[in-house]
Formats: sequence, C-alpha cells, structure tokens
Amino acid sequence: MPTPTHIAWSPAGGVRALDQTLLPHEERWLDLDTLDAVAEAIRVLRVRGAPLIGVVAAMGVAGEARRTGGGAGPQGLEAVRRACAVLGATRPTAVNLHWALARMLRRAEAAAAAGEDLAGALRAEAQAIWDEDAAMCRRIGELGAPLIPAGATVCTICNAGALATGGIGTALAPIYLRHERGEALHVLVPETRPLLQGSRLTAWELGRAGIPCTLIGDGMIASRFRQGDVAGAFVGADRIARNGDFANKIGTYALALAARAHGVPLYVLAPTSTIDPATPDGAAIPIEERAADEVAGFGGRRSAPAGVRVWNPAFDVTPAELVTAIVTDRGVVPPGQLARVMD
Amino acid sequence: MPTPTHIAWSPAGGVRALDQTLLPHEERWLDLDTLDAVAEAIRVLRVRGAPLIGVVAAMGVAGEARRTGGGAGPQGLEAVRRACAVLGATRPTAVNLHWALARMLRRAEAAAAAGEDLAGALRAEAQAIWDEDAAMCRRIGELGAPLIPAGATVCTICNAGALATGGIGTALAPIYLRHERGEALHVLVPETRPLLQGSRLTAWELGRAGIPCTLIGDGMIASRFRQGDVAGAFVGADRIARNGDFANKIGTYALALAARAHGVPLYVLAPTSTIDPATPDGAAIPIEERAADEVAGFGGRRSAPAGVRVWNPAFDVTPAELVTAIVTDRGVVPPGQLARVMD
Repeated sequence: MPTPTHIAWSPAGGVRALDQTLLPHEERWLDLDTLDAVAEAIRVLRVRGAPLIGVVAAMGVAGEARRTGGGAGPQGLEAVRRACAVLGATRPTAVNLHWALARMLRRAEAAAAAGEDLAGALRAEAQAIWDEDAAMCRRIGELGAPLIPAGATVCTICNAGALATGGIGTALAPIYLRHERGEALHVLVPETRPLLQGSRLTAWELGRAGIPCTLIGDGMIASRFRQGDVAGAFVGADRIARNGDFANKIGTYALALAARAHGVPLYVLAPTSTIDPATPDGAAIPIEERAADEVAGFGGRRSAPAGVRVWNPAFDVTPAELVTAIVTDRGVVPPGQLARVMD
Repeated sequence: MPTPTHIAWSPAGGVRALDQTLLPHEERWLDLDTLDAVAEAIRVLRVRGAPLIGVVAAMGVAGEARRTGGGAGPQGLEAVRRACAVLGATRPTAVNLHWALARMLRRAEAAAAAGEDLAGALRAEAQAIWDEDAAMCRRIGELGAPLIPAGATVCTICNAGALATGGIGTALAPIYLRHERGEALHVLVPETRPLLQGSRLTAWELGRAGIPCTLIGDGMIASRFRQGDVAGAFVGADRIARNGDFANKIGTYALALAARAHGVPLYVLAPTSTIDPATPDGAAIPIEERAADEVAGFGGRRSAPAGVRVWNPAFDVTPAELVTAIVTDRGVVPPGQLARVMD
C-alpha cells in the first residue's frame, strides 16, 4: 500500500500541505512559505494531528532558516530560535510539537557550533523527523494489527489517521495494515464535534482507501457499544503522562467510559514522542480551550442563539485505569509500564 | 411566571405552532389546517417533544373532525379513525402520541354513540389534554424542584422544556420553578446532535427566561462531570418501560454512564402517560432510525464525504439501574417502583 501523502516540500523550501479545513469538499494545497503562514495553518487547523504538527513545524523551521539566509552566523541561529518560539506558541496540548521544535533547535545549535550550513542541516533534520514519523506509523500498525479480531468492527474518534501524521496514521495504522492484507474490517467513525474531524477527515481518508466505515454522532458511541458488535476502540493521543493518563480529542473520555461499561478494549496508539516524562499525570496536562463559535455553529452557520455562553475544551483527559494498552512504535505496554518504551 | 406558549388553535380550528426547525434564528408560526400538514409537522420535527406531540396530534384530530363536517354520523367517526391512524404512524418511539390518539378515539366513539357533536367534543377533549399537560408540567416542576441544590449547576440533554410540552416542560420544569423563586441556577446544555435541539431550542428558551446556561458539545458531558461541579442531570423521556428502563434522545445513555461514573444523580422527568405498561423493558422499545443526511451534515451544510454510510438512531435506551429517580406528576419514585405512580 503506498503511503498517502498530505504534505510535501514547497518549491521555495517551505511546507506544502493539504488544507484540512476544506475537506472533504475541496482538496486545496497550500504553500506555507512564511513563518506566519505556517503558524496560522497550525493554529486554525489547516494542518492538525499531533504527529503531523510536529513534522510541519520542523519543516517550517527549516523553511525559515533558508529564507533568513541560512548561514552559520548568530543571526541564523537567532531566526531559528524565534521560529521555534512562534510555532511553539500555536497549540498548547500536543507535546510532539514541542518535541520536534526542541530537536530542531538542538540541531541548529550543533550546526552553528560546527560551522555547518544551517539551512541544509535543518532541512535534513526536518526530513528525518518526517521519515521517522512515517516509519513510526508503520511500526505502530504492525504492533497494533494483531489486536483487531478477524472481520471486526472497531471504533475510533477524531482523526488519528494518515491526515494526522507523516505516514499511515497512529490509531488507524493497524486498520490500514489489516486492510492491506485483504481483510474486511469495518470502522465506526464518530463525527467528533465541534470541528467534525471524524466526519470530514476520517470518513474521507477511509473512503479513499476503500475501508468500509459508518459515521455516527458522538452521543451514539455508548449506545452502539451497548449493542455488542464493537471489538475494540483505537484512539490517538496528544499527550501521554508518565502514569499513563492521556489527553486526546474531547469526547475520548466519554468513549473510554462507554468502552469500560461494555468490555470493549481501549487502545491508545501514539509514537513515544507523545509520552511526556515531564508530565506526571493527567491533571498536569494543559487543556487548550477554543473559541465559542466552534460549538455555537459549524462551517460559518450558527446554530445557537446569539450571546450564548460556551465551554469548548479541545481535549479531555482519560485516566490510565480505563486504558487496556498503549501501542507505541517501541512496543505494546499496559499504561502502568510506560517506562519500558521510554528513553 | 407566565407559561410560555408555542402552540395555539388556528382561526380555522386547526393547530397553530411555532416552527421549531427554524429556531433560534426565525420565529415563524404555522397554521396546520390539514391532516397532512399536521402529520408533516410532526414527522419533520416542526413540533417535537413527546408531550407536545401528543397535544398537537389531539388538536390535529379535533381540526380534522371539524373539517370533515363534525357530525355524529359514521362518516365523522371514520374520518377521526383515519386521522388517528395517519398521525399515529408519524413517529414510532414516543408513547404519549399513541396515548393521546387513543384517548381522542375513545372520546369520538363515546360522542358518536351518544349522538353528540363530534367536532365540539373533540375540540374540548384536545383542550383538556393540553390543559392537563400544562398542569402536569407544573406538578413535575414542584416535585422536582427540591432535587436541585441551592445555586447548583445541573445538566440536561436535548429539549424537554417548554418547547417540548404544552406547559413549562418536564426536565426543565424544576429549573423554571426555582428560577421563578429568584434563585440563581446554571444549566449545562449539550447541543444534542444531530438536530441540535439543545443548541437551537433549550439554549433559546432558557435565554428567553433569563436562566444562565452554558452550551457544550455532546462529547464534553463526561469530561465536565469529571470536573465535579455538576449537581444533577435532569432529562426527559420518550417512553418509560414497566421496569424503569427508558428511551430518550440519543446521547442520554452516554450521559447516564458519565453520571454514574461521577456520582451525579440522574433524574428522569416525565408525565405518567410516558410510562407504557405494555412495554416490559427497554429491549421492547422500538427505536426510530432517521435519515443519514442528519448526521452527514450540519444545518443543511454537508460535512461528510458523499456516499458515506450512517447509523442514526433518534433515541437510545438507558437501563433502570442508572436512574436515581423518576419524577412524574404523581410522585417521585425509584425506577423499580413505577407501579406506585401508574393507574
């Protein structure tokens, strides 16, 4: 199966990306050739998904280094530092973003110290982050594939698929691999309000791949689990704390409670870069709160009365005790044994 | 507090009703002066909410009796029978609809047997159903009001308010009464996909009444309960089985699981006409499945890719063991003691 690609290098050395806010109706590619353009694209979710944000931010830093001259002098390093600060401030919850930016900054400092060409070194580093991300996805797919019973219906939430990574996704990677082997699977896709990543993105990419899926409302998940035909829940993560608590798209905690109530195993699939050793538990994860308009309407069409108050956390925290296993590129572990797959 | 009214008799003796599909943006009143118009309004949810459907169907039968001559002969009774059959087929889950139609038919048969004026008798019967509904709401409010702690935040789902009844609602009735006494309460309003009755209707009517509320996505309920500031969940019901299992808007079961996980009491508020002695348990409740388009789009704007498969049950069943108490117009009982409030 060829890996679907939704990012590329732009001709100017910046980021070329599919604008995910326009899916599934329009497939428009954007050339993000300024730091502001990259930051805006991450902030308004033109590119989204924790692993993809990390890759795109790294590519954005490389692009900035090229635009600002790319020499080995202190000005070049200063521009990289500024780019990392600007991009690091776009979204607070996903740890991969900060992981990727810290790695780019370390590489820039090493390149500057060694008198290397900064732009060249950073382009190579960003490409390595992307390549490693794609390999990570495939490894998660291989490790997670045996967790899906033959012919099963499984449930996901939001989009932790190809569109969320530089490869075949995290939560969806085992599904892609089993489909690649010619097996008939079926994926339940909650629409994932408020921004409908399930409806707009997951249903779109599964449809493209020819994998049967059924779209449901977020409030239908528990009711569907009660029917007894769902063999597992496969979700991504934006940050995993040291104790196995994890943050993911709002609605994941409700899905986890429903899974527990009906004996549906809950698997969290994410690269080890999603595990944050500096975060002891879920209570320490900052949760991004987004604009009221997202819940008060959709796609520019308002559903709620004017002036209504809204609570719109983009993520929620699911406690480790509801997690069956965490599937990383380095192995499948119970949430209490994360140390086995950490550096 | 004056009871908000969203229905009336039309000048022609039919039903005048606020078109709830257009709220909160437009307040358009419709005169439903044919049987088809009444049936269509119920089917496409221009009027909705289990108690209101019963009232409107009864008024629709009265209007039909008037239009078809209204005499005491067999033709008049035949027209009433046909009207009851047509209106009874509009929505399968709500038992109040069938309860109200059966009552209208019994009254028609008695009027025909006694040689009374059919149209007059049926108008009076429909008015009685409406008046009793308004009184029922107020009684539910009085019995439910003590269940709300002072100054509390409570959660509801969908719309079981004034717009769903001929009075001040069922689930929202205690909130209206406590507000009427000058108390500051706060209501969490899940938007209730796919048709957004929470966002469009509940937030609208609470705003009109000056009751503070906060709109959330359906997938946020569990996460909000986890924060510990929600004192109770107040929901309506479309049918209550003899064992206390109940059907309500899809998403209610997920709310009930979250309530149980966090010690939030779950109250089901409904008239005794919602209890169906012929339904032994939740498994026997027919669940209406609605069109795919409702989930595949939002407010007429499609969000999902073309051709996606959809599962769209309008209701779900919550088992009695998750219910703290059922609040009816005849008393507050645990779900296992429904017989105490039944005929």
